[in-house]
Amino acid sequence: MVSPLFQPLGKALPVPGFRVGSASCGVKSASLRGKRQDLTLIVADVPAHAAGVFTTNAFRAACVNFGEATVREFGSDIRAIVANAGNANAGVGDMERVWSQALIDLGAKAAGVNSNQVLSASTGVIGTPFPIERITETIHQSVDSLAEDNWQAAAEAIRTTDTFAKWSSRQFDVNGKTYTITGVSKGSGMIHPNMATMLGFIATDAPLSAPRLQALLSKIADRSFNSITVDGDTSTNDTVYLLSSGLGLGYTELEDTSDFEKALTEVAIELAQLIVRDGEGVTKFVSITVEGAETEQQARLMGRKIATSPLVKTAFAGSDANWGRIICAIGNSDAPIVPSKVSLRADDVLIVKDGNLHPDYRDEMGMKVFKQQEFSLTVGLGLGEASATVWTGDLTHEYITINAEYRS
Amino acid sequence: MVSPLFQPLGKALPVPGFRVGSASCGVKSASLRGKRQDLTLIVADVPAHAAGVFTTNAFRAACVNFGEATVREFGSDIRAIVANAGNANAGVGDMERVWSQALIDLGAKAAGVNSNQVLSASTGVIGTPFPIERITETIHQSVDSLAEDNWQAAAEAIRTTDTFAKWSSRQFDVNGKTYTITGVSKGSGMIHPNMATMLGFIATDAPLSAPRLQALLSKIADRSFNSITVDGDTSTNDTVYLLSSGLGLGYTELEDTSDFEKALTEVAIELAQLIVRDGEGVTKFVSITVEGAETEQQARLMGRKIATSPLVKTAFAGSDANWGRIICAIGNSDAPIVPSKVSLRADDVLIVKDGNLHPDYRDEMGMKVFKQQEFSLTVGLGLGEASATVWTGDLTHEYITINAEYRS
Repeated sequence: MVSPLFQPLGKALPVPGFRVGSASCGVKSASLRGKRQDLTLIVADVPAHAAGVFTTNAFRAACVNFGEATVREFGSDIRAIVANAGNANAGVGDMERVWSQALIDLGAKAAGVNSNQVLSASTGVIGTPFPIERITETIHQSVDSLAEDNWQAAAEAIRTTDTFAKWSSRQFDVNGKTYTITGVSKGSGMIHPNMATMLGFIATDAPLSAPRLQALLSKIADRSFNSITVDGDTSTNDTVYLLSSGLGLGYTELEDTSDFEKALTEVAIELAQLIVRDGEGVTKFVSITVEGAETEQQARLMGRKIATSPLVKTAFAGSDANWGRIICAIGNSDAPIVPSKVSLRADDVLIVKDGNLHPDYRDEMGMKVFKQQEFSLTVGLGLGEASATVWTGDLTHEYITINAEYRS
Repeated sequence: MVSPLFQPLGKALPVPGFRVGSASCGVKSASLRGKRQDLTLIVADVPAHAAGVFTTNAFRAACVNFGEATVREFGSDIRAIVANAGNANAGVGDMERVWSQALIDLGAKAAGVNSNQVLSASTGVIGTPFPIERITETIHQSVDSLAEDNWQAAAEAIRTTDTFAKWSSRQFDVNGKTYTITGVSKGSGMIHPNMATMLGFIATDAPLSAPRLQALLSKIADRSFNSITVDGDTSTNDTVYLLSSGLGLGYTELEDTSDFEKALTEVAIELAQLIVRDGEGVTKFVSITVEGAETEQQARLMGRKIATSPLVKTAFAGSDANWGRIICAIGNSDAPIVPSKVSLRADDVLIVKDGNLHPDYRDEMGMKVFKQQEFSLTVGLGLGEASATVWTGDLTHEYITINAEYRS
């Protein structure tokens, strides 16, 4: 079932220097082999510079630890990403590291490079032995299908409970030359700031060295992947990688990164928002902006508090402009507030001003906004100049059905 | 409908020095007048010493601010508590203080005492004008019904969405004299640590001065009312009051409070657990104990993280021993952990040891535990000697129905 909040995406543009392939290994169950793609291989035909952001969960999967170390030590000579869906290879004890290294080695062999040039990612069920032999048997399919114009297949093959494949592309010009950014992402449940059961792989030919890529990715991740929440949980495996082929292709490094940053931000936000739109049971897409905070961090903290309140999210589900619950969530945030300065708008409707219900506000006005599939809440704190936006969905019966009735 | 997790309570014992009455004012809707009790009046016939703990929500209702100030300034001479259900008198602007003071004044007049001897509490819908005139018209009923043996009526009259009235009593002896503690509580949704949409009124004739009562209540609240969570939200009005008539009755102050503390803790835990058992949509009652923490606070922090995870709570609902989700929640807590030292038990079944799935564990063993209406989880951190227990319920379709389909 395609989410009603999903808008058909444009084409995933090829990125010079990268080829993408996929395979159907039956990772989750051997019976699925041949039925759905579940392994992605991204090959850089030249040494790629790399950056990564990783889950903050203390129980990190081995692939996350390996990947972080590889980016740090060999981040200017990355040649491949190998990723599987269907099994997170997490919480399985001492074998986790062995299986994770085996997946990296398989990816290296498939791409014809060294293991320390390969990043890996695994997503799926936690605590189940990792079927490395099924990948060994079938990974060759991903080599056979390698093509520049194959990003949508990569997006398909990293899906778990995702109901649709997610990708985003942008192009921008600097000094008459056109550069491309293409990314894929996955995730639908257990989504929360700090890389929650989410994978994102972004490739570009914009020529930038690894440290500059890392600085940009870390900055942008806070305003995109770390600004979404479905259910407030954060997984053990979440990772976003950014690879650049530009320097390997012999391009001159960009000095001014402003156009790149703008385009990369758009890609990252689109990839992140698609995850919310595909959130488990989500029927509404809500943008929550907190303005007038002292710091961006405090604004985001409050946005998250509102976005994770079960009472607020069920009010979204019921199209009930229950602003009392929103005010209550604002009061529960660890971010400082002065109640008498707080304002609240739903789209353009002013509900609360100076901490009090606005005299012109009528319930019908809020209800009209909350009935929409997409709307925005804007909280004003009146304390400073900083702001942040968080994107979330509603909490519905379908979420309970998915998570109480099936093991995921 | 009485919750399946509700066990019939014993009798609410009278407490020397206190009389209790109730009235049916139609606070929520005039049409409910005469149909259900919604105003409670607790009168101390002698000056009572008082203590209180209050919501941490930054948007505090006026009654909370008034009550805190009254306890601080006049805490050794309290004569009444007046409380209503049906309207929280919160989020209604400048009139909130006026209406709150008016309720206190009505309570004082009814009890025949001064306004600064009266504590008040309001619970119910947020953001709706407070119908003080309906209380003015009907509060006399609560005076007419004042009786020592009327605590169950008080428990009935503070209910909002509660499906059953909640009370608890204990007696204890010191030097051959028997003292009594009786408390009532309410709350079913928006329940979380730090006094969430919860009211609790506890009376005793154990002779203790206000400062000693306050020290004990603050300590005990963390291990009872602040250790429960239904949906992680914390309301604007939550309050627990503890009143003692003992000194006013001329009793000699207790030196050793250990028996009192033990009995008070039992009452507070029972009142708090009843709120979870009556939690919106709750069909399971789960005790989560975190052991081996460096501090009790860190243990409680982690217990709360597990208890508020939607993925963990839906696993409870589905009777699914999905320990991967619990491990994930442990990893998401802000409390420090060393993954290789973490253990997890469900009742007596050891699932995770030294951070790894225990080799003897089989899914059926966990499933058998999770199928029960009541069970316990025990997390071992292996870092220190501190522990804490948190009580919670599951997250079910019924919760969504209650909160998405009705305004509360």
